[in-house]
Amino acid sequence: MTIIINRNCSTPIYLQIKNQIQQRILSGELSDDYVLLSERNLAKQLKVDRSTVVKAYMELKADGLVESFVGKGTVVLPQLTKDMEFDKIYTPKIHWNQMINQDTDLEHHDLIAKIMEATQYRKIISFAGGIPASNTYPIEIFKNIQNQCMDKYKEKLFMPTSIYGCMELRNSIKNHLESRGINAATKEIMITSGSQQGIYYFAKLFIEAGDVVLMEEPTYLGAIEIFKAAKGKVIGVPIDKEGIKTDVLENLLLRYRPKFIYLQSSFQNPSGVTLSMKRRKELLKLAYFYQIPILEDDGYGEINFSENRLPSLKALDKSDYVVYLGTFSKALSLGMRIGWVAANEFIINKFSKFKQITDFHSNTMTQYMLSEFLNGGYYQQHIKKIIEEYKSKRDLMCTEILKYKVDGLQFSIPEGGYFLWCKLPENVRLTILMNQAIKEGVMFMPPDPFYCNGSIGDTYIRLNYTYPTREEIKKGVKALMEAIKKSRITTYAEGKSRTNDRNPII
Amino acid sequence: MTIIINRNCSTPIYLQIKNQIQQRILSGELSDDYVLLSERNLAKQLKVDRSTVVKAYMELKADGLVESFVGKGTVVLPQLTKDMEFDKIYTPKIHWNQMINQDTDLEHHDLIAKIMEATQYRKIISFAGGIPASNTYPIEIFKNIQNQCMDKYKEKLFMPTSIYGCMELRNSIKNHLESRGINAATKEIMITSGSQQGIYYFAKLFIEAGDVVLMEEPTYLGAIEIFKAAKGKVIGVPIDKEGIKTDVLENLLLRYRPKFIYLQSSFQNPSGVTLSMKRRKELLKLAYFYQIPILEDDGYGEINFSENRLPSLKALDKSDYVVYLGTFSKALSLGMRIGWVAANEFIINKFSKFKQITDFHSNTMTQYMLSEFLNGGYYQQHIKKIIEEYKSKRDLMCTEILKYKVDGLQFSIPEGGYFLWCKLPENVRLTILMNQAIKEGVMFMPPDPFYCNGSIGDTYIRLNYTYPTREEIKKGVKALMEAIKKSRITTYAEGKSRTNDRNPII
Repeated sequence: MTIIINRNCSTPIYLQIKNQIQQRILSGELSDDYVLLSERNLAKQLKVDRSTVVKAYMELKADGLVESFVGKGTVVLPQLTKDMEFDKIYTPKIHWNQMINQDTDLEHHDLIAKIMEATQYRKIISFAGGIPASNTYPIEIFKNIQNQCMDKYKEKLFMPTSIYGCMELRNSIKNHLESRGINAATKEIMITSGSQQGIYYFAKLFIEAGDVVLMEEPTYLGAIEIFKAAKGKVIGVPIDKEGIKTDVLENLLLRYRPKFIYLQSSFQNPSGVTLSMKRRKELLKLAYFYQIPILEDDGYGEINFSENRLPSLKALDKSDYVVYLGTFSKALSLGMRIGWVAANEFIINKFSKFKQITDFHSNTMTQYMLSEFLNGGYYQQHIKKIIEEYKSKRDLMCTEILKYKVDGLQFSIPEGGYFLWCKLPENVRLTILMNQAIKEGVMFMPPDPFYCNGSIGDTYIRLNYTYPTREEIKKGVKALMEAIKKSRITTYAEGKSRTNDRNPII
Repeated sequence: MTIIINRNCSTPIYLQIKNQIQQRILSGELSDDYVLLSERNLAKQLKVDRSTVVKAYMELKADGLVESFVGKGTVVLPQLTKDMEFDKIYTPKIHWNQMINQDTDLEHHDLIAKIMEATQYRKIISFAGGIPASNTYPIEIFKNIQNQCMDKYKEKLFMPTSIYGCMELRNSIKNHLESRGINAATKEIMITSGSQQGIYYFAKLFIEAGDVVLMEEPTYLGAIEIFKAAKGKVIGVPIDKEGIKTDVLENLLLRYRPKFIYLQSSFQNPSGVTLSMKRRKELLKLAYFYQIPILEDDGYGEINFSENRLPSLKALDKSDYVVYLGTFSKALSLGMRIGWVAANEFIINKFSKFKQITDFHSNTMTQYMLSEFLNGGYYQQHIKKIIEEYKSKRDLMCTEILKYKVDGLQFSIPEGGYFLWCKLPENVRLTILMNQAIKEGVMFMPPDPFYCNGSIGDTYIRLNYTYPTREEIKKGVKALMEAIKKSRITTYAEGKSRTNDRNPII
């Protein structure tokens, strides 16, 4: 086997070696079981470094042309021919990553996945998640409802529902929405596998590559992910205590031609802020004026600790501009994967086509059970129970945090929802804090995923008070405050922070 | 209000009228509450037909510029300004269809939707569906399993699972697959909301606009829909009694560079044909040789009436070319919406990202219940039961059809699965038959949706024997044979068909 190296050629030497051997194998010049020179000997013969030959042989192996066997050396493999017997053929390794649609790489925060995994273990206390407390699930009630459903609906529980969802649940949700001021006909309600699926379908329906979507900032990270995966250009609108800043929103509506506005109108994730009545009306007026649809995600609206009950945008909207997403995930159970869309028939029909090609319909048995749960008045009772529970946990977390008097740590007390959104003291560096917190045995959500294009600064953390137990809240807050104190950059003057920074509640 | 009509202008007169009035409203020349001339009077003044003015006013109304009030006439509406009070503003109707991504119009057979709707009613006998028999659902067993799960897993049943699905079910499926000759690690198994979702994710991952996908023809209509929605170019490969014709397949592999091959390896929908062992090996050899992945959809494989048990392509494949889709939909319950993917980790990880943005995970409670159902040995018992049931129904349907001795009607007896694929006599026109069948009170599936680009001829119908009761099979076959006889085009010579056409079983 003579190999000629051209040192003036721009092709690397290892590749020249590889290419020449490959050509001879493919041309049949080197047949099955032909033993190549050892790497050492070939290197000597060619006057190249041994590592060059090693690299050439590695490439040949990767291409399925040769294989090394102990005691035999590197031999030419039988080349695949279709006439060969199935059991004897050598099959090249498939290169999946070269075959896939390269457009599907998501700019992806693996945080949700990691947090969901972490909830399965209890080694460190998690303030990072966003699921209901374990002790709130109405296990006994569902046990009874299941047994009743089995007797009442029998085989229906195992059969497909309509693509729009089971009629019983759609009717129950219709009545439920009515009690909340939303008038939607049953045909304007469709069941989805969580409101996540509703956001996905909306993105699929509206966003073409480059389209602008406006959303609050910070906002639900899953929505950002979906809109970016759909190749939307996501632009954040800042919020204050009254929610999305409508003056800035108008500037952005004028500057861009957004396809729609996405927002969580009540106790939004992560800030806990609720859109004020004044802003709700301003927002709708802007939507009407500029003819921009609104996607209202209302997962937290019912978890309301205050006496103040604001109507949803959908309830205020008399002109069908609002597409409303509801869910059982936050008030009852995320594991059920049942949410709904309330919208005009045009949207519902478009969504139903997506439902048909993606998963036909959502789990039948759970739909029937939820319908019974709503109709039996259990849902209303459940909401009362969790409001009491979560309010007391919110109070506990706030009290505990205040106990440690961490200079410069600020938060507003949310009037509902799941989260405390805490501004860190200026002299705390987030990256240090994250490592320190894990060491102390507590986990939280960093701010970046909640911003459309990264954080405006490493200053906020999101703390969930619904999932951890009271004991965990106490221990976790202690650990976290300890971690914050330890994450201070000491070169900063201690007394630097301004007076109002000393009041931890703003 | 002076309007000047230019009869030489190419703009229609009604539009000239509309445009002139519109301009004056928008410029503020005609203010709020200004009453337009009545249609009759304006028509007289302009010397045009009244209908022309009616049309102009209708357009103005549609644009939200004017409104007609009884006793007042057609008045100019207050134009939207942001300074106006929320309750007083007039909101233009939103034009959803102009806002959406125009790329989402699916070339859509609404047949699946209609069939799913139809299964909810029992007025006409349906041979068109594809779901299990109502009397096969293990209601009592699931009632017990549910109660046991509530006691055993408690709050876990309500909590999220991992994005890959609950570990218990993935392990159960791992063991189940092992018993069927497929060795997949738990991490190579992911739970999906039906195998439909697996097909959808695979299409999302592989297909870029214009990519070629090869599939059997006829094949599962849902897969065609998904691949077309992903903008794939779907090309059919003909099948015979041994399944996909590998000689034709090779020609197509050479001619196109397909992204993948999709097929249902056993008792495929709609033809009931199973890929022979010889063809399985040929197919894999071709896949290896041309380095083309295979998406194997095995929903019907376990519903096997024969003694002949062929390994799945996934079981034969030693080189990870096959992505395998399994489901509980056909053997147990479509309503549960639980299927799975068995594939190498690269694919599983990509799928998990899609799962995260589309619906997080599948229904938790059902996943735990199915795990118990598999582990308790109930699934194997269930499969035995339904095989017996469906085999006897297949026999009944075949016997009943033969009883009516319809000249030229041909079918093969399927050795498993759900369907009879019947070739109609040459002198029967499908469109006539469909109407006639509905009149006689029976429904079936026409052939077109099963072909990639329409039918090769109106010659086949698909009959499902699993869902209808025995009584319905008898009545339905009678009605259908009646309908076929009545749909003959009588100008054809009765004696024209060749001898072998008289034997209805081929």
